[in-house]
Amino acid sequence: MSLTVVGSIALDTVETPWGKNEEGLGGAATYCSLAAANYTRVHLVGVVGDDFPGEHVRLLESKSIDLEGLERAPGKTFRWTGRYYKDVNRRDTLDTQLNVFEDFHPKLPQDARDAKYLFLGNIHPSLQLEVLEQAHAGFVALDTMNLWIHTTPTELGKVLRRVEVLIVNDSEVHDLTGESNTIRGARAIRDLGPRIVVVKKGEHGCLLLDEEGMFAVPAYPLGDVIDPTGAGDTFAGGFMGHIARQDRTDNLTLREAVVHGSIVASFACQAFGPNRLAEITMSDILSRCDAFRAITIF
Amino acid sequence: MSLTVVGSIALDTVETPWGKNEEGLGGAATYCSLAAANYTRVHLVGVVGDDFPGEHVRLLESKSIDLEGLERAPGKTFRWTGRYYKDVNRRDTLDTQLNVFEDFHPKLPQDARDAKYLFLGNIHPSLQLEVLEQAHAGFVALDTMNLWIHTTPTELGKVLRRVEVLIVNDSEVHDLTGESNTIRGARAIRDLGPRIVVVKKGEHGCLLLDEEGMFAVPAYPLGDVIDPTGAGDTFAGGFMGHIARQDRTDNLTLREAVVHGSIVASFACQAFGPNRLAEITMSDILSRCDAFRAITIF
Repeated sequence: MSLTVVGSIALDTVETPWGKNEEGLGGAATYCSLAAANYTRVHLVGVVGDDFPGEHVRLLESKSIDLEGLERAPGKTFRWTGRYYKDVNRRDTLDTQLNVFEDFHPKLPQDARDAKYLFLGNIHPSLQLEVLEQAHAGFVALDTMNLWIHTTPTELGKVLRRVEVLIVNDSEVHDLTGESNTIRGARAIRDLGPRIVVVKKGEHGCLLLDEEGMFAVPAYPLGDVIDPTGAGDTFAGGFMGHIARQDRTDNLTLREAVVHGSIVASFACQAFGPNRLAEITMSDILSRCDAFRAITIF
Repeated sequence: MSLTVVGSIALDTVETPWGKNEEGLGGAATYCSLAAANYTRVHLVGVVGDDFPGEHVRLLESKSIDLEGLERAPGKTFRWTGRYYKDVNRRDTLDTQLNVFEDFHPKLPQDARDAKYLFLGNIHPSLQLEVLEQAHAGFVALDTMNLWIHTTPTELGKVLRRVEVLIVNDSEVHDLTGESNTIRGARAIRDLGPRIVVVKKGEHGCLLLDEEGMFAVPAYPLGDVIDPTGAGDTFAGGFMGHIARQDRTDNLTLREAVVHGSIVASFACQAFGPNRLAEITMSDILSRCDAFRAITIF
């Protein structure tokens, strides 16, 4: 079954102690789509400016991603600039230029509306509601951020009541629920709407909570993290991609989906931008899934 | 096979947002011994003052822990006072009084010398060397801390060359090796001596590295962390206890040992001091091991 992905498409400038990547392909919807395209047909919905390089379009097309919902607006593409520290868990945002993203209102073409699975990337909750009005998806996953938790709680609350899955990080769990304990926080989120809560913890792995209880998994151990930008969105792409391909949302499939999400995210961290992610095939993913099983079994 | 545990025995005063525990039983060797006593015969080596409450001695005796190596010195028992925040990963040490611990030199009775397994709790590396001179153990696990890494690197280096296992947390990995990446840091530690490196990450689980590669496991998810004091030493007790009981140190046994360490540590966090830890039996541990398997399987 196909998956619609709505969110940002960006040109990212990333500085790390190991190098710099200027105006590389970025954005939540980009990472998510590239990851999910390994599993299923993806309908990408977002906006770029008239400066968006053709090579990026060709890369997305080469992965058979449906770009009918990729709007080209006059002006400049959304830009983000960030700097990572030697401890890659620490980063500073140096600059954000919304550009064409500022006036973006997602418009879903028919195929994107009809997709059974939908990922709502981290955009303003009122835009996420606009997407939900257009989409017929039976299974919707949501990302958000502390900014919306604090500035638009009412709109976010409405979105939460209409989605199956919330994918967040620890600090978002705490901000959304006021719970300092992640497990209790994840439980509290289920009372806000989502049947399934996924807590991404970066190098520390991932938790999933549904009505059957908790699933916990470490991260794939990486000695060579080059650039973790987009890892969370890549996780979401592997997670939703696996679910859409299996066309199942039972507990076992959700567990496998978390593992697939973790594995594709691990590839994404091993090069600047989506460079490594864009290279991998399902065979690479499955072979790392096997390695992961060997690393975690007891 | 039996296990000798050398380290601090303390009276801890712990404040959390949920309550206060004044002068409760504490200390690394205490937690480690109480955990390991579920698995095997433990020889406890440490020092207490003449103020050490008889009820604590009786608790240790009730677990069949051999107290021949428990020295009673004139003066006051080692005391530690700490305060935890709502986020229990954050704590401040408010006061440390070494008292009788200041002049402590471990003296191992014959049974403690002859034990096949030895845990060197976090004490001055020169004291750890004194223990190694007395002990005949074939398999030694070591704990340390950033203080010794920075102030006594030469002595610590000598100890490292004589132990099989180093059990540390992430920040100690970074300080000991200069590596910001935990995986690379753990690999670098193996070059310093230990065949096996165990990295404790608290609520984020645990990594083990040996010559066969990496084992990664999440923590047992707890919604009710009351007091994490001693969790790391409790982990070491479950880890070494399982190994001593199995009398094996192959990769599969080490993996199981990490799981046992994680499980006993989870119990320790669920009450002030070792109160919950002191109550559990092997049946509680095995039943939580089963639950843990169900939580982590995919």
